[in-house]
Amino acid sequence: MLALYGLAASRGYAIGRAVVLGAAALEVSHYRIAPEDTDAECERLAEAVSVARDDFLRLADNLPPDSPREISALLHVHAMLLADPMLAQEPLNLIRERHYNAEWALTAQGQQLGEQFAAMSDEYFRERSSDVRHVIERVLQVLAGAPEIAPADQAHGTGESLIVVAHDISPADMVKLRGAKFAAFATDLGGATSHTAIVARSMGVAAVVGLTNVCTLARDGDTLVVDGETGTVLINPSQGILAEYLERQAWFAAERASLALIKDTPSVTLDGIKITLQANIEWPEEAASALAAGAEGIGLFRSEFLFMNRHGLPDEEEQYQAYASVVRAMEGRPVTIRTLDIGADKTLDDEATVATNPALGERAVRYCLARPDMFATQLRAILRASAHGTVRILLPMIAHMHEVRACLAAIDSARAELDTRGQSYAEHIEIGAMVEIPAIAIAIEPFAEALDFLSIGTNDLIQYTLAIDRADPGVARLYDPLHPAVLRLIANTINAGTRTGKPVSVCGEMAGEVSLTRLLLGLGLTSFSMHPQQLLDVKREILRAHTNALRTKVAAVLNRAEPIDPKTL
Amino acid sequence: MLALYGLAASRGYAIGRAVVLGAAALEVSHYRIAPEDTDAECERLAEAVSVARDDFLRLADNLPPDSPREISALLHVHAMLLADPMLAQEPLNLIRERHYNAEWALTAQGQQLGEQFAAMSDEYFRERSSDVRHVIERVLQVLAGAPEIAPADQAHGTGESLIVVAHDISPADMVKLRGAKFAAFATDLGGATSHTAIVARSMGVAAVVGLTNVCTLARDGDTLVVDGETGTVLINPSQGILAEYLERQAWFAAERASLALIKDTPSVTLDGIKITLQANIEWPEEAASALAAGAEGIGLFRSEFLFMNRHGLPDEEEQYQAYASVVRAMEGRPVTIRTLDIGADKTLDDEATVATNPALGERAVRYCLARPDMFATQLRAILRASAHGTVRILLPMIAHMHEVRACLAAIDSARAELDTRGQSYAEHIEIGAMVEIPAIAIAIEPFAEALDFLSIGTNDLIQYTLAIDRADPGVARLYDPLHPAVLRLIANTINAGTRTGKPVSVCGEMAGEVSLTRLLLGLGLTSFSMHPQQLLDVKREILRAHTNALRTKVAAVLNRAEPIDPKTL
Repeated sequence: MLALYGLAASRGYAIGRAVVLGAAALEVSHYRIAPEDTDAECERLAEAVSVARDDFLRLADNLPPDSPREISALLHVHAMLLADPMLAQEPLNLIRERHYNAEWALTAQGQQLGEQFAAMSDEYFRERSSDVRHVIERVLQVLAGAPEIAPADQAHGTGESLIVVAHDISPADMVKLRGAKFAAFATDLGGATSHTAIVARSMGVAAVVGLTNVCTLARDGDTLVVDGETGTVLINPSQGILAEYLERQAWFAAERASLALIKDTPSVTLDGIKITLQANIEWPEEAASALAAGAEGIGLFRSEFLFMNRHGLPDEEEQYQAYASVVRAMEGRPVTIRTLDIGADKTLDDEATVATNPALGERAVRYCLARPDMFATQLRAILRASAHGTVRILLPMIAHMHEVRACLAAIDSARAELDTRGQSYAEHIEIGAMVEIPAIAIAIEPFAEALDFLSIGTNDLIQYTLAIDRADPGVARLYDPLHPAVLRLIANTINAGTRTGKPVSVCGEMAGEVSLTRLLLGLGLTSFSMHPQQLLDVKREILRAHTNALRTKVAAVLNRAEPIDPKTL
Repeated sequence: MLALYGLAASRGYAIGRAVVLGAAALEVSHYRIAPEDTDAECERLAEAVSVARDDFLRLADNLPPDSPREISALLHVHAMLLADPMLAQEPLNLIRERHYNAEWALTAQGQQLGEQFAAMSDEYFRERSSDVRHVIERVLQVLAGAPEIAPADQAHGTGESLIVVAHDISPADMVKLRGAKFAAFATDLGGATSHTAIVARSMGVAAVVGLTNVCTLARDGDTLVVDGETGTVLINPSQGILAEYLERQAWFAAERASLALIKDTPSVTLDGIKITLQANIEWPEEAASALAAGAEGIGLFRSEFLFMNRHGLPDEEEQYQAYASVVRAMEGRPVTIRTLDIGADKTLDDEATVATNPALGERAVRYCLARPDMFATQLRAILRASAHGTVRILLPMIAHMHEVRACLAAIDSARAELDTRGQSYAEHIEIGAMVEIPAIAIAIEPFAEALDFLSIGTNDLIQYTLAIDRADPGVARLYDPLHPAVLRLIANTINAGTRTGKPVSVCGEMAGEVSLTRLLLGLGLTSFSMHPQQLLDVKREILRAHTNALRTKVAAVLNRAEPIDPKTL
């Protein structure tokens, strides 16, 4: 038996037979073409890009109805990438100017783009370098005369549980594998926000990513155990261990089944306190997962997906359509749209220089307030979407009252512009701020008074409060959600909300961490927003909790010197 | 008239005649040598390096007694740089392996080293790239047959005020210019911690640095005004403006003279509260400036100078000698030595990768605790220095109680090792922590109880509390020492010190900013540590202040929503 350790990317246990997908990148030759062949070579590449793009769109439009919606979204992103000048035009310039052959021009440009993404400070954006790699691989396959992507024959469809093992799984791979019954994914690459992770979570199958060399060590037909709870993959385990995992799997399935029963149960504690449970989403398609998990609204809709993988900015209409699709899908339930939370380091702007400390740099509202036209476009699109339901605007990285005033003024200007145009928007739209910088959490009162709601982003709040970049392996061990300073800032924010009558929610990872649910209830929290997959676990914990008892207990330990052990609550 | 704007690096006003130092870097030819000439070329370079090194040491040892001590220190650093393998050996390898001529090998290696320094996140270290440039320039001059550096003849010594204008001023330049009466420095390059700034402040003459092109725009003999208060340089101003500046100059001189009178006056407020005034120093030689300004001790002795500009680490003996020299110079007054405050990004370790967010990475005690041998060496050297006076150990970047415990254990181990060796150290040594991360300032009580003193590092505390990298031009405008959250963290720390009976001082820039003295007194601060040049200004403000009245006023505004205007106190 061999045990490999990676990152648990989607929950659950799986036991099955390994299907190892070809891992090696296509080997292509690089050579210079004769100047007189330039036009023909350009045409050859343009044709291949066009074929690959049509392929992606055709696949996306012909998915079976039970496919995870994310696959369609990702395929559209890939098609969009190939329509972008950085991949559709730049390689042609390399052919014309340097006489590279088509394959060389494409890989050279792809490498440069991939490096730009990989250098970004945010894990979510770093993962996007795999999009570039995937679409380039596909164009290279077309150049090499590969057939169009088609769903696999039913050879795998034997009813047996199959575990997909790959270096990395592209959305097109997922289509190809359709018809097989997947039990889990195990990949060499990937992080918590990789495609594999997103799709696995939406399919409700276990996944372990970042295993480094599972693709080399596992062979077709090996018996695998994928433990999506601890991030472990076992290759050809003993019968004893298999029996142990069969038990865990049965227990996990029973758990899931019992959780499904509480989907429509109101989330009220034993002492009758109503707790609001909402979902965090990144893609419009995830609204369906939110509803399926019984979410009462979208507590955090990240708007970055529209700005990624492209040159230039999305226009107002494109943004409006995206926001409106979520607002309509949620049928009147609140949809909290966070304005753009990126900085210069996260755009593909060639002129942007990466800051020494991007996490302490010009990001989020700082970045938007310095680019009033871009900000106004997004605000108008959000306001227009509000005509279709209930929209709330959430401002990230707020630290100063003058930033709040500047954002409110920008929203007023956007309203005035829509009035001039005669376009409609909801009369009352709640405006809130992320509490993710220590300064606002410490001096919270004027912010609570000036705004309609507050949303605590625990990930960044912990990062700044402890001066820890969790993505830095040198200090990741010092990241501690239970540090007394962190809990006091959360308590201070909740208390200010209570005093001013403004709702306060937590939308960071702490909200979805079921082992912290009782602690957060004890801190007085009555609104949680998390990934849809975590929602029912947290709800069960809430149904079993007695809020007032927890508040008394937490108040007693909040000022202690040492981190609180949530197991003692 | 032409007005240029730079960075005010040393206070005061100067009016005088420009002396423009040659700015152009030496043009040297780069070519490949014949393989059989390799040995001779290596010898030629080694000889030049040796001559330049001896030159620096000779100059340092023959300075007139009234020279600023910093010049000698800097010349020794330059000699040390030339003894380091990175400059003494690496270029020889380039000659042997690539057959570069000596000049090319030297500049190639110098460029690489300079880039490493320039890429560092800390301004202080970035400035050190100029050291590399200066020593390489000197070796190139020797290779070109330049004579040894000698003090200038007395041609400039006419009694007239001279203003040195240069692209950048090296310590050797300062020696050459000896005999002239300098009124000020104005340079194209440099920041607040450049050599020019350090030496100008120690000489008490005005300096404006970072002027970009003063060296091109000013000509020998031009009349210049250097305004070290606002960072302005005027070239050939009108008689009216000259008259205005003569007045300001007279006023400033009178001010300085009146300040000198309070050097030995005890720093006590009008209502009889004793305020401790100490000095921040970076070099052992600055202890003399601290005493000259009437400092009651060293509130912050940065130990980084020993670790800069070198391969490898300083050994215990070298560190001990450096610390002991300061402890002896201060004659029993407390010397607070901060343990190493660098991270992987600030060493010239070739294997170190620069973190995405170095300010949130493995720095200071995090870095030291991960390198127990290096940390133990420094702790033993500090303990041994305590045998010569009063030493306090200051731990930077503390955020967790487990870090405090680990540091205390490391200090105990260092004591045990010295006991085994039979080496002496003071029986009682106070151990304190920097309060520069929000987490410690928010949850301060256990830290105040476990330690002997606390020192608030306002620069970093503001940076993390507001999530602002002040060195990032995109967000520098958002850096605000008066943000209510910052003031509450300072107040919280001071109050915890009062409750536990532990001294709390401020050693960040706020302590030396005379416009904030009354505010800090109002927050309850009774101990300040700052650059020696700022000490008497702050003392005068203290002598005029009524602490209890200020405390009442500040308590009334501390919980207000908006930043406090210190002018209203």
